[in-house]
Amino acid sequence: METVVLKFGGSSLADNIKLNIVANKIIDFKNQNNRVVVVVSAQGKTTDNLIKDAKELSQHPNSREMDVLLSTGEQVSISKLSILLNQLGHSAISLTGWQVGIYTNTNHQEAKIETINSKRIEDELSKGNIVIIAGFQGIDESGDITTLGRGGSDTTAVAISAAIKADHCYIFSDVEGVYSTDPNKTIETKKLDKLSYKEMLDLSNEGAKVLHNRCVEIAEKYKVLIETGSTFNSNVGTIIQENMEESTVKSIVKNDDLLLVNIKHKTYTNDIFNNLLTTLLQNGIPFQTLINNSIDSLNLSFTIKSEDLQSLEHIMENDLKIFDFSFTNISRISLVGYGIMNNQEIIQKTLNILNKDNIEIYTYHIDECKLSIIAKEKLSNTILEKLHQELIK
Amino acid sequence: METVVLKFGGSSLADNIKLNIVANKIIDFKNQNNRVVVVVSAQGKTTDNLIKDAKELSQHPNSREMDVLLSTGEQVSISKLSILLNQLGHSAISLTGWQVGIYTNTNHQEAKIETINSKRIEDELSKGNIVIIAGFQGIDESGDITTLGRGGSDTTAVAISAAIKADHCYIFSDVEGVYSTDPNKTIETKKLDKLSYKEMLDLSNEGAKVLHNRCVEIAEKYKVLIETGSTFNSNVGTIIQENMEESTVKSIVKNDDLLLVNIKHKTYTNDIFNNLLTTLLQNGIPFQTLINNSIDSLNLSFTIKSEDLQSLEHIMENDLKIFDFSFTNISRISLVGYGIMNNQEIIQKTLNILNKDNIEIYTYHIDECKLSIIAKEKLSNTILEKLHQELIK
Repeated sequence: METVVLKFGGSSLADNIKLNIVANKIIDFKNQNNRVVVVVSAQGKTTDNLIKDAKELSQHPNSREMDVLLSTGEQVSISKLSILLNQLGHSAISLTGWQVGIYTNTNHQEAKIETINSKRIEDELSKGNIVIIAGFQGIDESGDITTLGRGGSDTTAVAISAAIKADHCYIFSDVEGVYSTDPNKTIETKKLDKLSYKEMLDLSNEGAKVLHNRCVEIAEKYKVLIETGSTFNSNVGTIIQENMEESTVKSIVKNDDLLLVNIKHKTYTNDIFNNLLTTLLQNGIPFQTLINNSIDSLNLSFTIKSEDLQSLEHIMENDLKIFDFSFTNISRISLVGYGIMNNQEIIQKTLNILNKDNIEIYTYHIDECKLSIIAKEKLSNTILEKLHQELIK
Repeated sequence: METVVLKFGGSSLADNIKLNIVANKIIDFKNQNNRVVVVVSAQGKTTDNLIKDAKELSQHPNSREMDVLLSTGEQVSISKLSILLNQLGHSAISLTGWQVGIYTNTNHQEAKIETINSKRIEDELSKGNIVIIAGFQGIDESGDITTLGRGGSDTTAVAISAAIKADHCYIFSDVEGVYSTDPNKTIETKKLDKLSYKEMLDLSNEGAKVLHNRCVEIAEKYKVLIETGSTFNSNVGTIIQENMEESTVKSIVKNDDLLLVNIKHKTYTNDIFNNLLTTLLQNGIPFQTLINNSIDSLNLSFTIKSEDLQSLEHIMENDLKIFDFSFTNISRISLVGYGIMNNQEIIQKTLNILNKDNIEIYTYHIDECKLSIIAKEKLSNTILEKLHQELIK
């Protein structure tokens, strides 16, 4: 008898027809003699609507109270799903975050799980119940409700899997699994059978929507075997588990909506440089790497998301008027696969492909599982196509 | 410094405009140097909608899970109200039933409060917080969510008032208070300043909507001073407290939609009688008093609500075919006032009024605070008008 954790996202629960599909999928697992734990998100757009309601009452709603409000979304999902399963003749019991004992820190709206009490879950499983748990939520040491922020329900599912030592953690959504690149008109994408935690992490960090990086980090730490799959069919998805030794490019992903920012000043002094840096940081302009391209003068480049342009322009026009400021639309294309860093053949092949077509690269970054290049946005589709064609087996 | 509990019902919280009115009323109490606890229901039609949703998934939804579902309604109310109060510059904190520690028995959807832990409320009040509590809900000893059934939020408010020894428990709704009779075109109704618990109980039992009888029972037991009032103005409402010694008719209420049922059989034997009674009881036909009007034959009368007619007809036609069965539309008119039973003048006056106009009375019932008469439904308005005109001072 295996213990499985099944996680269903909001769009898989959006209406009664979908709830019935989910319930039947759960019953299939139960009928195959599994001990079944289910983790669910809020239905459809519930969370977005609750946030909208709160913003109508206050521009900056109190964080503690937001968590009380938002956590109702998953509580509605667990009770409805449990009502339906009982109606279909399978005894099911719902548990909220606090009823399970999912203890977090007090960082409202972005809480981190500290410990999970598995007793109530184990008790209900031994009674033969299907256990339906509210994702995304927990409780802090003073008994206040917390929520986990983005990717919260995935994180709950993997953390519960670790706590009860589940054999399998299935993350169901609208898509079957992880692909060799994002859905694309001109490229024949390929579904990946297996990925290592590190590869999945790199893909999540590059924006792959299938799994959130927080849940992959926990999965890696506790060696939770994750399998992604579609709620709406029974095809095999992608398995994420410990490192495979093969060294290949598994997936190529592209991030558009980026800007390469350039800031110049004719002289470079520590004062001028510090003033610039402090002002950018204090105003929350997020950049990871900042490169000075000159020695005598100041000539800085860094990448931001297009959505941060407005704030940056505001700062440059008001607080940093002495600097010259410009930007270019760029894309980051990332090749993800275990061992890329030590696979000279892949690196060489990539550079050759780009060279052959005279594609200009702004930056190039490599680490264990990932090779990222930054180029002009308008070239990104061509680059992705060529690399996918040559490097994905 | 007084401690006050303010209760607001669902229609007082139905939209953002009303939430703002409620918030400002709460702030008024806070500004008058009170320690303020607020108890709220679910917004508007939320509970009805959740019940509808559940019924679409299951004709008889699992009771435990219904409580998980329904309790979200009040949780949304407390967080929204708390977000709004914080936005308006007043520190407020929301608490669910389980966060307060409102312990109930396990009777899901109809749970009874057993104890209330006042510690968290007291702690938050000493910090100067306005404490916003979810009505209608509690937690049982195994940590499961329960709901209190009809009148649940009123009951929460009065029980919390008893637990924290509040000086005043205000129940706000759409109406200011209790009136000498229900709103009526032809009678000039009078708002009552004061009522005893017993009088209020009799009025609630006769269907007065202002307060539910469960909350009045708790209020009487713990001597909680209740004041009703309108959410939407600041007029003085009706105060409900310990017995006043005055003996007058305070209010006259009318219950239509009743049927006087008559069941006959030419012979009376214990077998026939027991068979009839058992069948009626087993099928859940609710009657309080059953009168046999004959000695030799069986000639039973009792009162039911019109809504129960269909089930009764079904039983009579299928299981009790040997009996003759008929019914008449009737009304019960009740005079409520402390000491009515011992006030011969009131009783005599009532009977004279009815006599004068040859109004035929089916039954007449008197107890400490109430005199009820049953008459043909079509006469009920006339009776109510005449009695109100002569007996209400």
